[in-house]
Amino acid sequence: MSKIVTLGEIMLRLSPEGNSRFVQVDSFDVIWGGGEANVAVSCANYGHNAYFVSKLPKHEIGQAAVNALRRYGVNTDFIARGGDRVGIYYCETGASMRPSKVIYDRAHSAIAEAKPEDFDFDAIMEGADWFHWSGITPAISDAAAELTRLACEAAKRHGVTVSVDLNFRKKLWTTEKAQQVMRPLMKYVDVCIGNEEDAELCLGFKPDADVEAGETSAEGYRGIFRAMAEEFGFKYVVSTLRESFSATHNGWKAMIYNGTDFYESRRYDINPIVDRVGGGDSFSGGLIHGLLTMSTQGEALEFAVAASALKHTVPGDFNLVSIAEVEALAGGNANGRVQR
Amino acid sequence: MSKIVTLGEIMLRLSPEGNSRFVQVDSFDVIWGGGEANVAVSCANYGHNAYFVSKLPKHEIGQAAVNALRRYGVNTDFIARGGDRVGIYYCETGASMRPSKVIYDRAHSAIAEAKPEDFDFDAIMEGADWFHWSGITPAISDAAAELTRLACEAAKRHGVTVSVDLNFRKKLWTTEKAQQVMRPLMKYVDVCIGNEEDAELCLGFKPDADVEAGETSAEGYRGIFRAMAEEFGFKYVVSTLRESFSATHNGWKAMIYNGTDFYESRRYDINPIVDRVGGGDSFSGGLIHGLLTMSTQGEALEFAVAASALKHTVPGDFNLVSIAEVEALAGGNANGRVQR
Amino acid sequence: MSKIVTLGEIMLRLSPEGNSRFVQVDSFDVIWGGGEANVAVSCANYGHNAYFVSKLPKHEIGQAAVNALRRYGVNTDFIARGGDRVGIYYCETGASMRPSKVIYDRAHSAIAEAKPEDFDFDAIMEGADWFHWSGITPAISDAAAELTRLACEAAKRHGVTVSVDLNFRKKLWTTEKAQQVMRPLMKYVDVCIGNEEDAELCLGFKPDADVEAGETSAEGYRGIFRAMAEEFGFKYVVSTLRESFSATHNGWKAMIYNGTDFYESRRYDINPIVDRVGGGDSFSGGLIHGLLTMSTQGEALEFAVAASALKHTVPGDFNLVSIAEVEALAGGNANGRVQR
Amino acid sequence: MSKIVTLGEIMLRLSPEGNSRFVQVDSFDVIWGGGEANVAVSCANYGHNAYFVSKLPKHEIGQAAVNALRRYGVNTDFIARGGDRVGIYYCETGASMRPSKVIYDRAHSAIAEAKPEDFDFDAIMEGADWFHWSGITPAISDAAAELTRLACEAAKRHGVTVSVDLNFRKKLWTTEKAQQVMRPLMKYVDVCIGNEEDAELCLGFKPDADVEAGETSAEGYRGIFRAMAEEFGFKYVVSTLRESFSATHNGWKAMIYNGTDFYESRRYDINPIVDRVGGGDSFSGGLIHGLLTMSTQGEALEFAVAASALKHTVPGDFNLVSIAEVEALAGGNANGRVQR
Amino acid sequence: MSKIVTLGEIMLRLSPEGNSRFVQVDSFDVIWGGGEANVAVSCANYGHNAYFVSKLPKHEIGQAAVNALRRYGVNTDFIARGGDRVGIYYCETGASMRPSKVIYDRAHSAIAEAKPEDFDFDAIMEGADWFHWSGITPAISDAAAELTRLACEAAKRHGVTVSVDLNFRKKLWTTEKAQQVMRPLMKYVDVCIGNEEDAELCLGFKPDADVEAGETSAEGYRGIFRAMAEEFGFKYVVSTLRESFSATHNGWKAMIYNGTDFYESRRYDINPIVDRVGGGDSFSGGLIHGLLTMSTQGEALEFAVAASALKHTVPGDFNLVSIAEVEALAGGNANGRVQR
Amino acid sequence: MSKIVTLGEIMLRLSPEGNSRFVQVDSFDVIWGGGEANVAVSCANYGHNAYFVSKLPKHEIGQAAVNALRRYGVNTDFIARGGDRVGIYYCETGASMRPSKVIYDRAHSAIAEAKPEDFDFDAIMEGADWFHWSGITPAISDAAAELTRLACEAAKRHGVTVSVDLNFRKKLWTTEKAQQVMRPLMKYVDVCIGNEEDAELCLGFKPDADVEAGETSAEGYRGIFRAMAEEFGFKYVVSTLRESFSATHNGWKAMIYNGTDFYESRRYDINPIVDRVGGGDSFSGGLIHGLLTMSTQGEALEFAVAASALKHTVPGDFNLVSIAEVEALAGGNANGRVQR
Repeated sequence: MSKIVTLGEIMLRLSPEGNSRFVQVDSFDVIWGGGEANVAVSCANYGHNAYFVSKLPKHEIGQAAVNALRRYGVNTDFIARGGDRVGIYYCETGASMRPSKVIYDRAHSAIAEAKPEDFDFDAIMEGADWFHWSGITPAISDAAAELTRLACEAAKRHGVTVSVDLNFRKKLWTTEKAQQVMRPLMKYVDVCIGNEEDAELCLGFKPDADVEAGETSAEGYRGIFRAMAEEFGFKYVVSTLRESFSATHNGWKAMIYNGTDFYESRRYDINPIVDRVGGGDSFSGGLIHGLLTMSTQGEALEFAVAASALKHTVPGDFNLVSIAEVEALAGGNANGRVQR
Repeated sequence: MSKIVTLGEIMLRLSPEGNSRFVQVDSFDVIWGGGEANVAVSCANYGHNAYFVSKLPKHEIGQAAVNALRRYGVNTDFIARGGDRVGIYYCETGASMRPSKVIYDRAHSAIAEAKPEDFDFDAIMEGADWFHWSGITPAISDAAAELTRLACEAAKRHGVTVSVDLNFRKKLWTTEKAQQVMRPLMKYVDVCIGNEEDAELCLGFKPDADVEAGETSAEGYRGIFRAMAEEFGFKYVVSTLRESFSATHNGWKAMIYNGTDFYESRRYDINPIVDRVGGGDSFSGGLIHGLLTMSTQGEALEFAVAASALKHTVPGDFNLVSIAEVEALAGGNANGRVQR
Repeated sequence: MSKIVTLGEIMLRLSPEGNSRFVQVDSFDVIWGGGEANVAVSCANYGHNAYFVSKLPKHEIGQAAVNALRRYGVNTDFIARGGDRVGIYYCETGASMRPSKVIYDRAHSAIAEAKPEDFDFDAIMEGADWFHWSGITPAISDAAAELTRLACEAAKRHGVTVSVDLNFRKKLWTTEKAQQVMRPLMKYVDVCIGNEEDAELCLGFKPDADVEAGETSAEGYRGIFRAMAEEFGFKYVVSTLRESFSATHNGWKAMIYNGTDFYESRRYDINPIVDRVGGGDSFSGGLIHGLLTMSTQGEALEFAVAASALKHTVPGDFNLVSIAEVEALAGGNANGRVQR
Repeated sequence: MSKIVTLGEIMLRLSPEGNSRFVQVDSFDVIWGGGEANVAVSCANYGHNAYFVSKLPKHEIGQAAVNALRRYGVNTDFIARGGDRVGIYYCETGASMRPSKVIYDRAHSAIAEAKPEDFDFDAIMEGADWFHWSGITPAISDAAAELTRLACEAAKRHGVTVSVDLNFRKKLWTTEKAQQVMRPLMKYVDVCIGNEEDAELCLGFKPDADVEAGETSAEGYRGIFRAMAEEFGFKYVVSTLRESFSATHNGWKAMIYNGTDFYESRRYDINPIVDRVGGGDSFSGGLIHGLLTMSTQGEALEFAVAASALKHTVPGDFNLVSIAEVEALAGGNANGRVQR
Repeated sequence: MSKIVTLGEIMLRLSPEGNSRFVQVDSFDVIWGGGEANVAVSCANYGHNAYFVSKLPKHEIGQAAVNALRRYGVNTDFIARGGDRVGIYYCETGASMRPSKVIYDRAHSAIAEAKPEDFDFDAIMEGADWFHWSGITPAISDAAAELTRLACEAAKRHGVTVSVDLNFRKKLWTTEKAQQVMRPLMKYVDVCIGNEEDAELCLGFKPDADVEAGETSAEGYRGIFRAMAEEFGFKYVVSTLRESFSATHNGWKAMIYNGTDFYESRRYDINPIVDRVGGGDSFSGGLIHGLLTMSTQGEALEFAVAASALKHTVPGDFNLVSIAEVEALAGGNANGRVQR
Repeated sequence: MSKIVTLGEIMLRLSPEGNSRFVQVDSFDVIWGGGEANVAVSCANYGHNAYFVSKLPKHEIGQAAVNALRRYGVNTDFIARGGDRVGIYYCETGASMRPSKVIYDRAHSAIAEAKPEDFDFDAIMEGADWFHWSGITPAISDAAAELTRLACEAAKRHGVTVSVDLNFRKKLWTTEKAQQVMRPLMKYVDVCIGNEEDAELCLGFKPDADVEAGETSAEGYRGIFRAMAEEFGFKYVVSTLRESFSATHNGWKAMIYNGTDFYESRRYDINPIVDRVGGGDSFSGGLIHGLLTMSTQGEALEFAVAASALKHTVPGDFNLVSIAEVEALAGGNANGRVQR
């Protein structure tokens, strides 16, 4: 059981039921999620002492966000309370050739307007084993970017391993702004997670494969991995490789590089996908658990890929699976027979 | 069938089902409402050509707001499309001694940041018979206050009757700001609707009765009505008088003054209340219909009070009742026997 | 355990959830009901061998109607299968001063177009103790009126007690047609149930009290009861007396006359009413059970009134209560304490 | 933005949730649909001024049908109000090898009993660009067939392009009756849409391929297309080609012939299908938009096929998709990646 | 129409909606099921006089179980009432590589603690044509095993055909205990249903194929079938052969041996699976109907396999399909076209 | 912020939606509750460090119980994991004269079969300020009674204040058994909560008033309070006084005695009641907070009564209200006006 810290935003996700479209429903499912919050829940599920650090309003909607995290065992002691609003995203679930659609309404959220004095990063990082953040956090606002930097510095002061999921979001910032903010933060990072697109858009590495077209030739990633490890001194460079056949059918595998060896995981054919949102975060959560508790990067990666494959079958952002379930799948049991 | 124009904001209301509290639910009912939108729906129900003027984002959530209005027959041709977000309010329905609770998340909505060039008020007011707005609209933002002024001026240019529901909202502005904005707008107003509290907070008239305590002695209103009519030249001064016994049990009546005579309506005992939100707006909608189509202020007021009494039994902000239903109640049929 | 036969129509009731109005919902609750079907369910709940006789289409919607009856223990062996459609009624639940509203769509249903050869009334009445029908059945169509007459004749051939609930429905026929059909059928009837309005509209007896206004002076009923018993030779004349304060608050009691004595029941104050539809049928069901198993008309009436008071708290047309529950209430336990 | 008129019936569709069967549910989803109404909604979604012409009862269920159309922007000014009932169809959604099942209860609906004087077809067609109807409309009743003829004549008087979707329904009429009614109406038609089965059953053209078995060799259609164009003078003959692998997996493409050239569209593999009902109507809606706004029959057809492929992923009869979404798919983007 | 008796337990199944996990829901669907109850429902659907024999508490939850059976036409006259609790199983529906999960809470149920005097097995078997039980019934408790023996003896006294579905449940007993109880009961059995795993675990026959790995080479079954028929004198030995590709995609076929000939059925590819629970029971129900009414074992098996393939598309334990639907599929119509 | 410990059982409550009866629903709301768990949630809501001590199975249903507590901030570190089942109670919500009904299925739950070695009571009580239990805990089983004794002893060793809610449950034990177990435990108790019925049944004090009849003359309680305080040395004796007019309308007040003075609280008229279950527990929770933080027994009692009055308006067992909401009501603001 390790102490794992994540920093970011938890949002209220409002989703029509099933495959209904935004304009045809009279109720929204209330789902809570956000990149780093999702990672925290995964880590808590695996038995770790997971902290999610953020800021949320004092009112009941803010409290509901806190409760969602507590429900799944995440420690919320370092969530500052205050600010005006909870970030929202509307999310409609696609099917077949109709993609899922996300509409963000997250500007002016409490964490976007948080200040350094809302957090005592030394207390937060004290005794921590791992600190994880994603490219979404500094993209939220300049204030949040500053918080990210402060958190990274504190992590390094306390000898905490730092991982990042690059996660470029074009609605939040431009490529130019992203690189300007992200590149300086890479010096704090030990484990860098991100597909080729993220690597290009956040860090400026040009991919060799046409990701949008569903090409995921692992070969194409090797050059970039080496270059990234070299430039920023990452201990591990990791990427998931998604093949998008349709909104409900994907191929899913991943690759890791520890500066010496490449390891490519087993591939999963996911069909049907129940909820694709949070898939990448569940990979990060699985990888953190794997690197903290397993002896090889290959074992860690297989755990992460199996965990995130399972996530695609769980409604909501959070990956509500146990170590035993992940290990059963990673161990090869994918036939879906009823567990009685 | 008259052309009736309203200007304001329509918001996405997110409500837990039944009497559940915000923190205990996993879905929200999607309800659309807002003071002036509610009035427009009432007027459309009564067969008028009702226009709701506002601004909404181009995305699907903005479209869903437009659709909600179209569904009930409101003309949306003058709704500008653009801006970032749809205003939201979270609303939890109380019971017995537990009050309903509203949490606003409406800052930065499209209409709050709309500009005069988004609207052609002369086209909007062309041929109109009535223009209605409430004190919420100018309270949203300075930009919205400016739009209100422009709309009032255009209405007067086109000989349109103007009504206002004072509707003070302490979360949106201070008493000082309210009076500074509202008092200059009163010169455009023909029909002023508002209880004593509104009159004091928006216009500076000190009430004689302790409204919060549930006192609704109609006598106490007469002095204020006379003073208001005198100072601003209102043709009609109108107020509802609510007795709040509990969140689910209210008394409900109203009073009108045409500069000469006072008329006090029949009183309704509403128990249980199904949804109290929009009660005042349904009164305004009923009053507009009454004043446009009936021969005495008394008939108009009885229609308005019966209409709004019925609203308390309808879920959601909109008052989905017909003229026939209102007239049956105003005519004395309140025994609730099944209509087969 | 007696064999009890009822003849009539079971309809698909489509109801918005809670107090929502027809025009605002995206789903309807599926409820099954109809005067005589409701009586059959009550009798089955009290342990009797209750038969419901009707005709329903062979398709799955017809089957769903059969299943609804079987679920609650009603014998469906004599339901003919065939015809085109299942009768429908849309029902919206009111609250406070807003009445519940029913829209019928029952024309051309299978039972309305059934033929005598669809039923073997001698087999149906063989060994039966009681036959119940209501004024709705002959009102459905001339064919259904003919079926009613044939059933009554068979009942008399087999020495079966016959009860009728007059139940005038102005949407189905005129007063003239009703009297022309109903009066000749009264010669088969032993127990006549119906309030003053029904007595007037179906049989031509002029009431002394203004029922619509909620007056239920039991005195006013005595004269009519005596006249009805005299003219038609009823063994019992019975009426419920409803005070309609609002859609959700009623007073409820009943009166019975056995040709010699009048008995007036205890009065129940029902607040809130959960579902008022089927209230009269639950009274008939309780009365049949009472007259079959109890030694005095007073006991039978108290059982019937308590049963039907409870019905007002049960969603749907069927009165899903047990003998023990009815007796507890009739015995005076109305404090509503949790039964653990 | 063109004025597009459709004539037909809108029905209340009652559907169990998800894949539940009729006999196992306690609620029905309320969905509104009908061939021509579906086409009207598609056209309104693409920005056209779409009119749906029909007749609906004055009660609230009729109003709910009107509201469903208004919600999605369809103009309902020419819907006559009156008659007894709203047509109903019960629809259960299949999966895998279990087919979806439809039970009709539409006889005696308001439009089936409408009269010519309910409509002013000259006013309706004044300024219109397009008039669309389907073989269902004249099949409803002789009265409706007469209305169809009157509408076609008015369309021709006003120079309106006329399209028909042959859409044979064996529950509504026989092949003989269909041909007797439909063949004389073909002289008004410019664009004829219908698969081989429809062509045979409505017009008497014998297909060359075994459609039921899923064969959709486009070749087999050429001969029929030529013959149809020749006999009736159609400007365009169009057909969709569905491969039914299972209730949830279909292949989907289409073919068009302008009297000179054949064009066969891209093929979509739709898996899973969310709701197959309305698929053909969404094709007609897309084709009308395409032929009105695009320069080649090929572009129009690709738009129509992509639009209707998307429809299969949207719950309900209406195809709630935008031009941008259709064009993205027609442009080749079918990978289903989340749109953020 | 034959009289068919089954003996076993009906349980309350509590399931999250859709693919949600146990820990994330705020409501459970209420589904009723249990091996032999499921068989009884199938038989009732096919028009047989099906009896389910069990014991259930007198309270309302016990009554709800009775009602669920009555709803679908099962005769419940021989269900004893008493005992403390209704058995429960929690069931979560998987998707793709995530298996469905069942948590049992069935100890101490009324049937597990029932006594021989609760049942009059001679009355139960009087006039019966078939008696079916599964290996779950004797596994519930020693008392239930004794009931099973008594029922089998009575069946034989009355010349009733006996079938068993071996159905080993490792949560209920060990292999040793299973064999010790089951082997002596085989002498009463005419038709033995069970896959290789069941044959090994319940009866001690070692399978030749690796069932868990999805191998279903029909060849591997022949030797076991012959050995089973020889040792126990079964008239028919039957097995389903499931290929588990994922929780939502299975292959499905079956094999039967009448002591002389083997018959292997058509294979169905089921994708997606809606609800896999009760699949085996629906096979038994179909087989009983087939062997009772058809002239060859091949026809019976094809009916059983088609019936159970359809079951996988129906939510809940019960297989709510008609003979016509099964025969349509068995006849080759698997294209899933809408049935209008 | 005090450390407060409670010991008991948390159960899965399965409730039909709204006022539906057990036999008519197809889903159950999942609600978590139990006397001491409810108290813990109240204390957590008031900002205390509240621990709930119990035992729950390791499976997901046990986990869901843990999550329900964590969601509302209760510390679950001392919940032992193991055992077979989660206790269940079915609860149907009454209305008007129909009482709510509870069916228990809690035998053999994990806590009922827990052992002393499952808990380290010294660690649990270390640093605690308050320990609360109810008469339900020792009534569950002899094992649970032993745990209660051990917990009380540890509490006394650590100087922790102990409160008990007598809470007699006739389904769990007899009066004789209750007194035999409870009386010896009273020596550990500082604050004794219980109405007259509890005092009689658990401790053998004969009440002076007819509680069942709704008499709640506070006078009648004084003698018993004095006697109880004298015999057992309680610092406070407290009782709620409920007037049961119907299932949805109660009067509610309370009385406290500190050995010197009596204080009788304000009386609340609760109408309608939304959910009465947990009302007593919310009183205990409020009282603990009051006695820990307020200066007089009167203030503490008023807080407790207002808190529990509010509970009656909140669905579920838990009292999800804040200190501010309770204080507003205790301060006299009961008019239920919307809080914006």
